[in-house]
Amino acid sequence: MFLVKVYVSYKESILDPQGEAIKKAIHGMGYNMVEEVRMGKYFELRIAENDRAGLEEKIDDICDKLLANVTMESYRYEIEVE
Amino acid sequence: MFLVKVYVSYKESILDPQGEAIKKAIHGMGYNMVEEVRMGKYFELRIAENDRAGLEEKIDDICDKLLANVTMESYRYEIEVE
Repeated sequence: MFLVKVYVSYKESILDPQGEAIKKAIHGMGYNMVEEVRMGKYFELRIAENDRAGLEEKIDDICDKLLANVTMESYRYEIEVE
Repeated sequence: MFLVKVYVSYKESILDPQGEAIKKAIHGMGYNMVEEVRMGKYFELRIAENDRAGLEEKIDDICDKLLANVTMESYRYEIEVE
């Protein structure tokens, strides 16, 4: 079994309104030293597969078509053996 | 400057309807070997602070009060020096 941790976030060039709103709220708590907040999505996929070969290809396909909007978002992932 | 990566996800006991819906969509792509999908939130905070001491306390406060709904969600984070 593989545990794949996927991180999806806006590309640097894309304005992140949610991140800006959260930053304001954090400043409202008195933590003005927080200079930037970026928000994204986090997925954990458990994959019942024995063969590691070809796994990246499948994960890329799932990310490109489903988990990320690749025009605005970029993704990275980590593969762990469970 | 510190870069703090925060991962917020549902506690194990909590049903994750979004994760279930995504799993169905992944199976619809033909990837039935994906047995579980859990979805959460991912944050990157850039913090202009020189002193590492006390940083965890501030991040815990921000997570407990703002980034996570601690009744249903749990969080973990990594601190990197930038």
